Amino acid sequence: MTLVVQKYGGTSVGSVERIQSVAQRVIKTVQLGNSLVVVVSAMGKTTDGLVKLASEISKNPSRREMDMLLSTGEQVSIALLSIALQELGQPAISLTGAQVGIVTEAQYSRARILSIHTDRILKHLEEGKVVVVAGFQGISSTEELEITTLGRGGSDTSAVALAASLQASRCEIYTDVPGILTADPRLVPDARLMDEITSDEMLELASLGAKVLHPRAVEIARNYGMPLVVLSSWTDDPGTRVVSPTPQPRSLEGLEIARPVDAVEFDTDQAKIALLRVPDRPGVAAQLFKEIAGQDLDVDLIIQSIHEGNTNDIAFTVSQAIINRAEAVAEAIAPSLRTHPAPHPDEAEVMVERGIAKVAIAGAGMIGHPGIAAKMFATLANAGINIQMISTSEVKVSCVIDAVDCDRAIALLCQTFQINSSPSRLPTPYTPHPTP
Amino acid sequence: MTLVVQKYGGTSVGSVERIQSVAQRVIKTVQLGNSLVVVVSAMGKTTDGLVKLASEISKNPSRREMDMLLSTGEQVSIALLSIALQELGQPAISLTGAQVGIVTEAQYSRARILSIHTDRILKHLEEGKVVVVAGFQGISSTEELEITTLGRGGSDTSAVALAASLQASRCEIYTDVPGILTADPRLVPDARLMDEITSDEMLELASLGAKVLHPRAVEIARNYGMPLVVLSSWTDDPGTRVVSPTPQPRSLEGLEIARPVDAVEFDTDQAKIALLRVPDRPGVAAQLFKEIAGQDLDVDLIIQSIHEGNTNDIAFTVSQAIINRAEAVAEAIAPSLRTHPAPHPDEAEVMVERGIAKVAIAGAGMIGHPGIAAKMFATLANAGINIQMISTSEVKVSCVIDAVDCDRAIALLCQTFQINSSPSRLPTPYTPHPTP
Repeated sequence: MTLVVQKYGGTSVGSVERIQSVAQRVIKTVQLGNSLVVVVSAMGKTTDGLVKLASEISKNPSRREMDMLLSTGEQVSIALLSIALQELGQPAISLTGAQVGIVTEAQYSRARILSIHTDRILKHLEEGKVVVVAGFQGISSTEELEITTLGRGGSDTSAVALAASLQASRCEIYTDVPGILTADPRLVPDARLMDEITSDEMLELASLGAKVLHPRAVEIARNYGMPLVVLSSWTDDPGTRVVSPTPQPRSLEGLEIARPVDAVEFDTDQAKIALLRVPDRPGVAAQLFKEIAGQDLDVDLIIQSIHEGNTNDIAFTVSQAIINRAEAVAEAIAPSLRTHPAPHPDEAEVMVERGIAKVAIAGAGMIGHPGIAAKMFATLANAGINIQMISTSEVKVSCVIDAVDCDRAIALLCQTFQINSSPSRLPTPYTPHPTP
Repeated sequence: MTLVVQKYGGTSVGSVERIQSVAQRVIKTVQLGNSLVVVVSAMGKTTDGLVKLASEISKNPSRREMDMLLSTGEQVSIALLSIALQELGQPAISLTGAQVGIVTEAQYSRARILSIHTDRILKHLEEGKVVVVAGFQGISSTEELEITTLGRGGSDTSAVALAASLQASRCEIYTDVPGILTADPRLVPDARLMDEITSDEMLELASLGAKVLHPRAVEIARNYGMPLVVLSSWTDDPGTRVVSPTPQPRSLEGLEIARPVDAVEFDTDQAKIALLRVPDRPGVAAQLFKEIAGQDLDVDLIIQSIHEGNTNDIAFTVSQAIINRAEAVAEAIAPSLRTHPAPHPDEAEVMVERGIAKVAIAGAGMIGHPGIAAKMFATLANAGINIQMISTSEVKVSCVIDAVDCDRAIALLCQTFQINSSPSRLPTPYTPHPTP
């Protein structure tokens, strides 16, 4: 008997008809000989409606009470889906986060999962039931049953963490798009659906992938080697497989936080271009990166900071191979970014720096732990290594430093965050353009 | 510090504005120097909406999943009320039935409360918080956290049971009517608001009172001597006090069920009038009892049973003092109940029996225990005592028997149900008419 975890997002269970259609999909999977745990989100706009109700009462409602409020959305979904399954003759039982024993940090509204009790789920699976679990929620204490929620993308995280804890054979994420596309189809009409993507590539897809699959969920999948599939709940298409390398054996205790940092990564194939003192007016960044993209040049980090007065600095990094072309584009566009008709001599100055490197720490355990980033910055500062650029996502902190400091930075970061495995070279930046 | 339990029904928390107004009422009570536990129902028509959703999926949804579904309604209310209180500067915390530890029978959709853990509530009260508890819900197992609901009127039951467990000084039930009226104001325009009513009288008010305050809640209040007040959440009027005699000390374990039967009651001042073989057509009972009421005659039990073919028997009991007048009314109306134009000689025959008595068993623990009624019938049957009429409410089973058997029936019932206190004479039936 193969154990499969399926997760259905809000639009997939947005109406009675959709819930009935999910039930049929679930039963089809059972009939293929699988045991099934199903994780569901709140129906359609339920969460938005609850947030609106609360906002009419308070502009700054307490996070504990918001978790109390919002966790009802998933509870409604699990009850209705279980009723739909039972109506079709499929034994099923719904379980809240508290009933499963999804134990999280004592952090309302953005808790990380510490551990998941699997006894009760396994018992119900053995009874031949489909187990329907409320996504997005847990409890911070098995005694006081304090209800916590996992924050944005929480149901994805619940599903992958359940799959890891139950050692499922795969985790299927059903959503309203057919899978992971090579680009945002609203911007690039001929965006292609990918059959397969690695979890590392997926984590780089901050701008595209994160809308479909939350980085925390991908990070857990990578840590535990859990095969993921992202697919549409509206079609029978096979979707996109997210594959992970075979992981090191890893404890399920402290699932999301035991090792807040999983890897130290680096990339020495970087160069930086900065446009200094460009006017602080809308459209400057758009104008610049439209030109860059028009030349099919891939950009990695982009940072814009308020400089002083009414001007900004915009800096970005590219791979060394294309630095000359990128510089040419920047120089070509700079004049149009200067104030007309009497430009200041220093305005929109283009600066190129070749001898840089990027070092990054990555791990699902970072979310809501600002201390992790601070620890990285302190480690570099204490060694006298200057940080030129910083970029963060929910599962990664990247710093641009002088290339000559790279090896030393890696060694110090591995030591600080107790990373014993060798630091990994950062994957080639993913190309958010349709490849010809 | 006086501890008060307040309960607000669905219409009292039916909108954001109403919730804010409840919050202000709660704070006013705190400012008078009280500690406060607030029990709330689901907002307005929330429960109906959830029931409708489920009914669109299944005509016969499982009771477990319905409890999972419906318990979300109260959870939304407690979160929103707590947010409203905090917004007004009043520390508050919401607790679900599971978080409090309201332990019930393992009976979905109509569970009785076994016990309530008070530690956590008391801790929060000591911290100066208003504790907002979800009504209508509990858990059947502190280990598996199975969510149960208490059935119709459940939030009233939660509030009074909490008040009893916490040894509160009173329990206030806020609703959308100003208190208990002497009659249904839709039928009797000059119905008067009562300042006070005894819990025994209240329990007799099946037709009027039960809409305002659930009999199970009244029964618990009587068992534990908890003063109740029924009042409007829309006005500052004082409402109706429901007073109970000082009770025998009683364990809080098995709160609703430890003694399913609390009292054996009797009434020997009864006579029965039966109208046999009246045509089975709409309006017959209405016609009869309109005449009876027009004569200001109080009726106690009314039973209508299918006789055979197309005729019914209707029987009712009255106190002996008015039997002659009641018989006259019945005889006067009987001809109009006969089939025109060729009446059968036995049709609508009036039969009077004076030598009867009513014996009853009463207790909050009866609900959902059909075995209790069966045990009463078996006790009487084994003693060769014939039961002429049966009437049941959620907290009482009454039987009309021969007056000569009354003493023996009482003794046997006290023995069967282990009632050591002396049987109580039934209270005079409450007059559901405006007294002049």
